Amino acid sequence: MSFAPNGLVTLTTDFGLDDPFAGIVKGRILGRFPDARIVDLSHGIPPGRADLAGFWLARSWREFPAGTSHLAVVDPGVGTARRVLLALAGGHLLLAPDNGLLPEALRDQPGVQWLAMDTGLPEQLALGTLSNTFHGRDLFAPLVGALACGALHPRQFGQPAEPADPRPLPSARATADGLEGEVLLADRFGNLITNIEASRVTRWLQPVVHAGGSAFPLRRTYAEAPPGTPLAIVNSFGLLEIAVNRGDAAVILGLGEHAPVRVTEGLSA
Amino acid sequence: MSFAPNGLVTLTTDFGLDDPFAGIVKGRILGRFPDARIVDLSHGIPPGRADLAGFWLARSWREFPAGTSHLAVVDPGVGTARRVLLALAGGHLLLAPDNGLLPEALRDQPGVQWLAMDTGLPEQLALGTLSNTFHGRDLFAPLVGALACGALHPRQFGQPAEPADPRPLPSARATADGLEGEVLLADRFGNLITNIEASRVTRWLQPVVHAGGSAFPLRRTYAEAPPGTPLAIVNSFGLLEIAVNRGDAAVILGLGEHAPVRVTEGLSA
Amino acid sequence: MSFAPNGLVTLTTDFGLDDPFAGIVKGRILGRFPDARIVDLSHGIPPGRADLAGFWLARSWREFPAGTSHLAVVDPGVGTARRVLLALAGGHLLLAPDNGLLPEALRDQPGVQWLAMDTGLPEQLALGTLSNTFHGRDLFAPLVGALACGALHPRQFGQPAEPADPRPLPSARATADGLEGEVLLADRFGNLITNIEASRVTRWLQPVVHAGGSAFPLRRTYAEAPPGTPLAIVNSFGLLEIAVNRGDAAVILGLGEHAPVRVTEGLSA
Repeated sequence: MSFAPNGLVTLTTDFGLDDPFAGIVKGRILGRFPDARIVDLSHGIPPGRADLAGFWLARSWREFPAGTSHLAVVDPGVGTARRVLLALAGGHLLLAPDNGLLPEALRDQPGVQWLAMDTGLPEQLALGTLSNTFHGRDLFAPLVGALACGALHPRQFGQPAEPADPRPLPSARATADGLEGEVLLADRFGNLITNIEASRVTRWLQPVVHAGGSAFPLRRTYAEAPPGTPLAIVNSFGLLEIAVNRGDAAVILGLGEHAPVRVTEGLSA
Repeated sequence: MSFAPNGLVTLTTDFGLDDPFAGIVKGRILGRFPDARIVDLSHGIPPGRADLAGFWLARSWREFPAGTSHLAVVDPGVGTARRVLLALAGGHLLLAPDNGLLPEALRDQPGVQWLAMDTGLPEQLALGTLSNTFHGRDLFAPLVGALACGALHPRQFGQPAEPADPRPLPSARATADGLEGEVLLADRFGNLITNIEASRVTRWLQPVVHAGGSAFPLRRTYAEAPPGTPLAIVNSFGLLEIAVNRGDAAVILGLGEHAPVRVTEGLSA
Repeated sequence: MSFAPNGLVTLTTDFGLDDPFAGIVKGRILGRFPDARIVDLSHGIPPGRADLAGFWLARSWREFPAGTSHLAVVDPGVGTARRVLLALAGGHLLLAPDNGLLPEALRDQPGVQWLAMDTGLPEQLALGTLSNTFHGRDLFAPLVGALACGALHPRQFGQPAEPADPRPLPSARATADGLEGEVLLADRFGNLITNIEASRVTRWLQPVVHAGGSAFPLRRTYAEAPPGTPLAIVNSFGLLEIAVNRGDAAVILGLGEHAPVRVTEGLSA
């Protein structure tokens, strides 16, 4: 149970930024912990996509100093009996609904301690009546505020508990002539991020990425391809990515989530 | 005039986040008050919609600790003689153009003290020449900075003054067989937030919500309806809302702002 | 080399806010400098548009107190040998890839000191292996963190160096009957910001702005034109702007970037 809070709280939600939902959550956190320092990771998770929230949180939480609390609220089951999970990992604390988000965020992390919230905790913390539609405000915000300032210790939070069945993002799999995976998402630049870990292909002699009926050579930088030309690249998260130098690959290639992607050694196949 | 500033400043504007207007406002606030702690409520208010800014601020400002200063700039009359209003309510300070925004934000709030800015104040604070198009930067930012750090006391701000005629958002009204209201807005999830206060119908035996030619039963949680199915629900602000479990009601039902919504007791009508 | 850091760091990028790239950069900054106070200027710069990032940074950086560090990452050449530039100006520090961004941001600024990063600095700061696609995280974030907390002095950063050929935004030019410029961008309100400095025309007797086959009189405020009516105005940055009172000029007039704009004295021409 080693967690020494440093006052930082990150937020990952599907609330968007047009409505003030994220700001309201910050107000409630500051109500419990006036000195909280809150950093937005993303409020642009597609609505209800706990798996994608987990994907991005996995690539973000380690960037912060140990002692940081990470709150993630993508919560289509809000108001139902779904549990609230707390995870301790690497000196960080993560808090989210028990819907597969945190298992995805901590997919390859060793030594995670899992706790499920005691159902009596909201009353004990005098959280008042919870709405059935906005637990980010009513439940998660005061919880993370209390945890991030040390007023609530993780051991007071609840009992050890395995996460409910996660529905993780799909993994790439080996095939007769290489690997087969898929596009997980397109980022802001239209780069198509796949679920193929580059470490599985970088020792190949001449890896070639196939998608949407085309083949793309593996480049080292975006700029190695002429402007407007598609390429494959190892992205900054160690995943294969299909991109277009100075262009939007998702639009130009007409590909998106779930599009199949194959990698072969050499152009054959 | 009881206002003990706590250093927090919230921002509500229609500036968007693509252009750096909100960042520029923060720079000017920090110029007056280097230790200001600034929290975004929303910069995504539809352009010019002071009424919707007021609606969201009403549901946000109380979430912050007493002593918080709330700046709201939706200002289609920028550069004209419209006044600048300050309100003190519940230990909070609110500042905005006098265009109906603050009356909507403080609609049901008792004991509001209203002040209109002395026209000589900008010169007194050495704000320099004001542009005619960006008072968020030139006027409101240094004002809220000075107020939030205590350098300017509300009683030095101006004289007691009633807000100019507010043009509030419409209220739901009682009809022969129930209530009639309308959709105020669709949130990021496509949930259709109405102006019907749920407290007016929750004691009814079997309230049914009618909109766009369909009738929706009142559910307790989104998840009570099968995925893709519309429902009515009491949202976290105590308003009736039409939603689709794991779907976008605005898109699926083809409804938006001003769409009429009726509530009856039972399915008759 | 006078730079006394005040702990403030501003960010200008083309990362968007849907993906957590900006949040990840903040995590790395806080890893180097736990007390950093980070302010977003914009993460909505159109992808790859270093020139527009420079345009907005030019209109933003002076709004912050002296001692602020400004990081701008629009970096289509990421992973190539492009240099990293640091500029000291007016007590501020600015850091960006050497791609024309900073020369645009400092276009009219006297007394700028320019430094190019020593290529050995990343190793010296133990930054680890840099990815080829996300130097905002791997390089710029720890650099600005170290500079903003004083752990790295600008004189340790590198050697004096002129920026590589900037490709600045176009300037308006004098013609036989007035000035000719163009639309640089449309802001969130649909206001068409031009590259014509208003100071060049405001002493004219009756300046008239021509664009898209129409002529627009110069107004003092948006509200001087009837709602829905186009007008020209001196915007808050001293540039001529074509707007529609309570409307979106870009949509209504069908104009955008690069649209030619002329100013004449009187309606002739």
